[in-house]
Amino acid sequence: MNRRRLIEIIKEKGSFLCVGLDPDPAKMPEGFEGADGILAFNRAIIDATRPFAAAYKPNIAFYEALGPKGWEVLGATLDYIGEGHFTIADAKRGDIGNTSRMYAQTFFETYAFDSVTVAPYMGSDSVQPFLSFPEKWVVILALTSNAGADDFQFIEDGNSSPVYESVLRKAAAWGTSDNTMFVVGATRPEMFEGIRKIVPDHFLLVPGVGAQGGSLSEVCRYGLNSDVGLLVNASRSILYASRESDFAEAARAVAESIAMEMNKILQK
Amino acid sequence: MNRRRLIEIIKEKGSFLCVGLDPDPAKMPEGFEGADGILAFNRAIIDATRPFAAAYKPNIAFYEALGPKGWEVLGATLDYIGEGHFTIADAKRGDIGNTSRMYAQTFFETYAFDSVTVAPYMGSDSVQPFLSFPEKWVVILALTSNAGADDFQFIEDGNSSPVYESVLRKAAAWGTSDNTMFVVGATRPEMFEGIRKIVPDHFLLVPGVGAQGGSLSEVCRYGLNSDVGLLVNASRSILYASRESDFAEAARAVAESIAMEMNKILQK
Repeated sequence: MNRRRLIEIIKEKGSFLCVGLDPDPAKMPEGFEGADGILAFNRAIIDATRPFAAAYKPNIAFYEALGPKGWEVLGATLDYIGEGHFTIADAKRGDIGNTSRMYAQTFFETYAFDSVTVAPYMGSDSVQPFLSFPEKWVVILALTSNAGADDFQFIEDGNSSPVYESVLRKAAAWGTSDNTMFVVGATRPEMFEGIRKIVPDHFLLVPGVGAQGGSLSEVCRYGLNSDVGLLVNASRSILYASRESDFAEAARAVAESIAMEMNKILQK
Repeated sequence: MNRRRLIEIIKEKGSFLCVGLDPDPAKMPEGFEGADGILAFNRAIIDATRPFAAAYKPNIAFYEALGPKGWEVLGATLDYIGEGHFTIADAKRGDIGNTSRMYAQTFFETYAFDSVTVAPYMGSDSVQPFLSFPEKWVVILALTSNAGADDFQFIEDGNSSPVYESVLRKAAAWGTSDNTMFVVGATRPEMFEGIRKIVPDHFLLVPGVGAQGGSLSEVCRYGLNSDVGLLVNASRSILYASRESDFAEAARAVAESIAMEMNKILQK
């Protein structure tokens, strides 16, 4: 999917919500056991949230854990999402060049995702193979939403620039704002002002709203740009809004409420 | 597998060679097409190298790219390796805590690998879930063998300590030398002296000998410790030693020659 189409989807829906499809058997309602159960759960969540979501982001860990059947569920989930939404394989891959090429092939060809998340630790040649696929995107971890982000992402170089800023600066030069996005966690909204100075045009994928405690309005204050430029993800707060038989209605209600808040922000 | 048993295997074989099982259809001999072909290729390589290898390391990218069947090949390859070798899932995973737990479950339970490689960018909570499985290991990227390592791993903090040294120092404290190893590339052998000062007891997984140009004797000069403390990986130089029908004999010859060099070094 190209940038123009992504922006179109967001504007049509009045929402830049990304729904994380992280089906965790320990948190799911009864009656959705096994690989078939997970696919049925995903379909129910997609049906319930489709009008309110601009993007879907399956986290690959939750599919891998099921063995080969999990990858069938992943493929069937992607098919069920269809063409009307931007899709993100949240895989956080990254390896030497010839290996990253195989990962790119997996997520862009074996599965037809629009984008894949990549960890930057191994540098340019671990990211570049993802950039040679037309209308596909790489989403690079910059500043993550978890507590462990403090361990290495804030190490400052001689110019007092933290590692995550080096990632933004260098990686922005490897691709363009038409094929590269960055992950920036909602749990550190005070960082968005500085980040927008480095990457004013790039889309940012923002996890951490909802279960992790980030605030949508705080993120938007500095995060929005003239093309919206944000995909804000919620996973657990939508998927597990209820563990009873009304889980899909509950998911719908949470997604709708986030989308309405987004719509208001976009209309300001 | 615990540390004592790993050391026993290395000493019995007189080899600390890890054979990387990265089956790339573009490089494999004719007659090994498709998922079944890859499994047959892996079995031939394992048969040919078993006496000379202490460990096997399938790189997950090459299996993922095949879709669900690739994960069946991975499982069957792991079964074929059996109990006599240390196994490493080269997956370079890493995510927030609840997701890393799913990855750990995948590689330690769904598949019974002894260890998995993990990228450190997301910090402590992305690594810790891998450390709670008895006799399982996490292998953390510290200084990688590729050119892109220069981009972020050498950024120096206020004490002139590069990021990869911070990774060694912090991550060594998350676990112990009984459940944590580090990836250090053979392409920078001059770094091993400093690295051994930070992690004298840990096993190091060393890629980059062979196709990537690293030297075994250079790595060993400072890398070896009293428990050997090294697993040196070769993938392409063994797997693709020949593209003809003699590929297995050619693989055996390369593996044997590396193992003999290792044996000599160990007997010094």
